[in-house]
Amino acid sequence: MNNGPIASYPFAREVPDGDTHERHVCGDCGWINYVNPKIVVGAVCTWEDKILLCKRAIEPRHGYWTVPAGFMEEGESTAEGAARETLEEACANIEIDALIGIYNIPRISQVHMMYRAKMTSPEFGAGEESLEVDLYAWDEIPWNEIAFPSGVWALKHYYETKELTAFQPFDNPELDRHRTR
Amino acid sequence: MNNGPIASYPFAREVPDGDTHERHVCGDCGWINYVNPKIVVGAVCTWEDKILLCKRAIEPRHGYWTVPAGFMEEGESTAEGAARETLEEACANIEIDALIGIYNIPRISQVHMMYRAKMTSPEFGAGEESLEVDLYAWDEIPWNEIAFPSGVWALKHYYETKELTAFQPFDNPELDRHRTR
Repeated sequence: MNNGPIASYPFAREVPDGDTHERHVCGDCGWINYVNPKIVVGAVCTWEDKILLCKRAIEPRHGYWTVPAGFMEEGESTAEGAARETLEEACANIEIDALIGIYNIPRISQVHMMYRAKMTSPEFGAGEESLEVDLYAWDEIPWNEIAFPSGVWALKHYYETKELTAFQPFDNPELDRHRTR
Repeated sequence: MNNGPIASYPFAREVPDGDTHERHVCGDCGWINYVNPKIVVGAVCTWEDKILLCKRAIEPRHGYWTVPAGFMEEGESTAEGAARETLEEACANIEIDALIGIYNIPRISQVHMMYRAKMTSPEFGAGEESLEVDLYAWDEIPWNEIAFPSGVWALKHYYETKELTAFQPFDNPELDRHRTR
């Protein structure tokens, strides 16, 4: 059975009754394909004063370094997702203790939620999506080889608030105008 | 053209190579339908000491009261989404000044992000999705007629932190164990 490319299905772009946005609506049955932003969850994880970074074994940004992070899955909480990604990518167990930032990337419809976490033991290793994993002192971080802007922001905002317990999570640097911490 | 119900398409539940979760994968072309949690954005909005509530004109929970909130759309930030929902449902303009809570509802794969906001003028009205909209003093809030648990949590967490600028957003009450504020 071959139904051909998706473009041959009778979907049209239209604004459903009572809605405010254009959606893909099926011309046969009226089913509406809502597309909403996706959540990326991650964590700046430390053991003593060092920060856990993973060298990416996958695209995009193969070979660049990142804090453990990935798409939140159904059936988990945001914090559980960040811990799962850390276990998958860096084989490390963590305990989350604060939310560092919520970074909005509207161009690609992503919301990145970055937590602060402590490793519960010094063990770590390269998961399937990592070429290598290592602990970096602050002044050894390879800033020019960090995979994504949200990783740079999370690291810098981590450093700015690492002694604090009560603070509002940061926005993207260019959006950060409302908050006091 | 009628391709019949979706169940007749050659999709199977399987774990794609390198993935950790089962997905719907097309048996014809290998396309993977990733389904991730959706974000609901909303705000506890005040004018002087009163709180803006909307009586829902739509299901679910038709006739119950809610803080302005709804699904985040593509191309906007989380705070912009909360402001848009407030304008749509309560015809009110707001300025956001803090993030009150991030409530995880894994059962329905939703993450509710609730902001604190001030109305920029005393004007408001019932949008298409509201039967009526009103400003409530704290001790007049119809607690037994609030539509969703996250609305109750956001209101209570708002009240607990309304004089604070530096605090971590709350989790669901039953998850709230990590944070100091």
